[in-house]
Amino acid sequence: MAAITARIANRALGAGERLPSVRGFAETMHVSPSTVVEAYDRLAAQGLIHARRGAGFYVSGNKAPPMALADMGVRRDPAVDPFWVSRQSLDADPSALMPGCGWLPADWMPQAALRRALRALARTDSALLSHYGSTRGSTTLRRLLLARFAEEGLEAAPDQLMLTGSGTQAIDLICRFLLRPGDTVLVDDPCYFNFQALLRAHQVRLIGVPFTPNGPDLAAFEAALTAERPRLYITNSALHNPTGASLSPQTAHRLLGLAAAHGVTIIEDDIFADFEPSPAPRLAILDGLDRVIRIGSFSKTLSASVRCGYIAGRTDWIEGLVDLQVATSFGGPSPVATEVIASILAGGSYRKHVEELRRRLSHARQAVADRLAPLGIIPWIMPRGGFYLWCRLPEGQDSADIARYCLDRGVVIAPGNVFSVAQTAGDFIRFNVAQSDDDRVMAVLRDALSAPR
Amino acid sequence: MAAITARIANRALGAGERLPSVRGFAETMHVSPSTVVEAYDRLAAQGLIHARRGAGFYVSGNKAPPMALADMGVRRDPAVDPFWVSRQSLDADPSALMPGCGWLPADWMPQAALRRALRALARTDSALLSHYGSTRGSTTLRRLLLARFAEEGLEAAPDQLMLTGSGTQAIDLICRFLLRPGDTVLVDDPCYFNFQALLRAHQVRLIGVPFTPNGPDLAAFEAALTAERPRLYITNSALHNPTGASLSPQTAHRLLGLAAAHGVTIIEDDIFADFEPSPAPRLAILDGLDRVIRIGSFSKTLSASVRCGYIAGRTDWIEGLVDLQVATSFGGPSPVATEVIASILAGGSYRKHVEELRRRLSHARQAVADRLAPLGIIPWIMPRGGFYLWCRLPEGQDSADIARYCLDRGVVIAPGNVFSVAQTAGDFIRFNVAQSDDDRVMAVLRDALSAPR
Repeated sequence: MAAITARIANRALGAGERLPSVRGFAETMHVSPSTVVEAYDRLAAQGLIHARRGAGFYVSGNKAPPMALADMGVRRDPAVDPFWVSRQSLDADPSALMPGCGWLPADWMPQAALRRALRALARTDSALLSHYGSTRGSTTLRRLLLARFAEEGLEAAPDQLMLTGSGTQAIDLICRFLLRPGDTVLVDDPCYFNFQALLRAHQVRLIGVPFTPNGPDLAAFEAALTAERPRLYITNSALHNPTGASLSPQTAHRLLGLAAAHGVTIIEDDIFADFEPSPAPRLAILDGLDRVIRIGSFSKTLSASVRCGYIAGRTDWIEGLVDLQVATSFGGPSPVATEVIASILAGGSYRKHVEELRRRLSHARQAVADRLAPLGIIPWIMPRGGFYLWCRLPEGQDSADIARYCLDRGVVIAPGNVFSVAQTAGDFIRFNVAQSDDDRVMAVLRDALSAPR
Repeated sequence: MAAITARIANRALGAGERLPSVRGFAETMHVSPSTVVEAYDRLAAQGLIHARRGAGFYVSGNKAPPMALADMGVRRDPAVDPFWVSRQSLDADPSALMPGCGWLPADWMPQAALRRALRALARTDSALLSHYGSTRGSTTLRRLLLARFAEEGLEAAPDQLMLTGSGTQAIDLICRFLLRPGDTVLVDDPCYFNFQALLRAHQVRLIGVPFTPNGPDLAAFEAALTAERPRLYITNSALHNPTGASLSPQTAHRLLGLAAAHGVTIIEDDIFADFEPSPAPRLAILDGLDRVIRIGSFSKTLSASVRCGYIAGRTDWIEGLVDLQVATSFGGPSPVATEVIASILAGGSYRKHVEELRRRLSHARQAVADRLAPLGIIPWIMPRGGFYLWCRLPEGQDSADIARYCLDRGVVIAPGNVFSVAQTAGDFIRFNVAQSDDDRVMAVLRDALSAPR
């Protein structure tokens, strides 16, 4: 029943189409014909299919169930489902403690600059406050971004850049543009959990490549390219989520060579760039935006409430992506949002704000690592920047159990397996150091580790 | 070559799969085998496919071209392509005149209220300015919307409502949730041109149902339900775009009965609701949000720069749609945007603003109709509200020609066929009455009508 329902759900069997013959399907499924007959009869009783006398079973019209994203993975345990951390942290009670969340506390963000930008906005041009944005988004913000790219050594033309509603929407647009259901996509294992949720929505096959402190394991990467023929690889090169690791120059160069040899496109999500003390190698820069598409946003260092992302890539692809954004969002991102971001980036205070963030985070990383050590929770590496610590639990502990225990006590934890396609990170937790240096977090964690199960 | 390329592009033929045999494909295409051999050889020269000795032709790996949305329709003429009006008007020079665009001039929008809301925002809570929004979006705004629904006679539970990034994104989310490539969708003919662009991105089959002054032609609607077995029907019940017509109570009731009998889901896009002098029948209200999903936004009466939309529907569907929005946008719409909208809706001035808009539009509709009449351009109906006039051109005129002529002279027109799936509206133009009462618009139109072609 599940096999037929799945085929109808993903439209492999369309309305009005004939189901496999009882005998044929029994052979396929290694069950007896009478089992298939019973399954078909039950599906018919549900109205999903119907029998035609002497002519087999047919899919009923308009019965294909909607996309149940939460059911599309193999996992149902909310503690290790990629949606779990998103929904818990996005919808958390304001009183909850969130060492598992993916953003900085509000008082770490540039509040004064944000308020100044909003007051300036209240005095700006009426058209900006009222109208849809242009299809590629604010010219001012695009110019600022191109100037930053040039500083990094990436000369991009204006028509190689577009703004989007957010970094996630940027990746989603690219996936819609390049992928079709059934395509294969490589991700790091571990990787940002929402990559998995997003790619599930595209009904693609996910293959995880083990991640090392220097980037993906190249032997595994090459083997996956050969065996799985992926269309796309998605990664963070710098301050990788969740590990905080960055690509080494050698890994970056070899990885690009392999990608070129196998015709794979790469999305490089550069969202943590501003947290780096000094720039790590970038695939987009080495490659010159040929097969690498760079995406980014301002949600981590500026505001996740005033959202905007960007895509930089080949001119012809950007043209196609602009069409797709017009069709699916009607226009680029909110002009009000992009104006706020442009005015903060252009102002003198942003660079200072980011320097201050780096300094605070450097202290917080050490402080949290020092407090976790007595609990036997040890960072996999000590990242050069950013707010994540990817930590291994003491032998025999399961981070899903810890996460459930903590959640019952108002503490949202990010358990390792939400980041792992292969489900091999059950003994890891990702900590947000800006949200973890707290007595209650440490107390609940200590209790969780010693709780009987 | 085109047939094979299309199959590869839409993944009907995947990487590594065998192409149809030369003899078989020749029969399918009613061409000679030598023609097929030549086509296959050319595709092989392009690297899209390759021959295996004695074993036929195979699709090469990772070569499937990205989604070229602009090429997915049957039409290539930019003057009648649904993307044309979008891109021309979104990216227009500020000096361009835009009788074809889909929004009001900035000075018709509630500027004072917008500026007041932005100043209040500059003094608000830090978390609101910094953090991602909750997955369903602002509680305040949802409560305001539910209260409005209740006033209309639609009692919806809080978990039947979610906020989205925009009205377009609301429809896009629903399409991703309910549709799969190859599904069939009914739209009105004419309908909002971006419905077509959006649905193209979902690779579904579009069937147009002729629209009458009382709603869709029910005989044609029923015939399409029977013959085409659509999954979905998308419409505006009130102040339909582009015609300005509204559903009659009888049409609404019968249409819902037909939809129920054929198991079709309906998206009712209610974006023009606030322009109505008195409410026309609503499918969502009659149906009680069972098979009808209501979507809307504030872009037309409040701001298209501060964007936000909503979806109201069945609880279980909203739950699935929230998952999908988390996966593809990470969280609901911008809290900054929803706060601005909520504070304007809650303030006393919005109702007055909307009443003033209705009064001005009522004058503008008459004024523009009066100026078009001497040119022989006549409204199909005189709408009860809104800013569109759907007008028939004098005999023998082609609106695509007029649009091209006007564009060369800095005037953006919306030619009829961008709204028509069947391409039967070549002698219509949609006018935005708030952007058309202008001597230069009328002068260029007059010249266009008498220009030699």
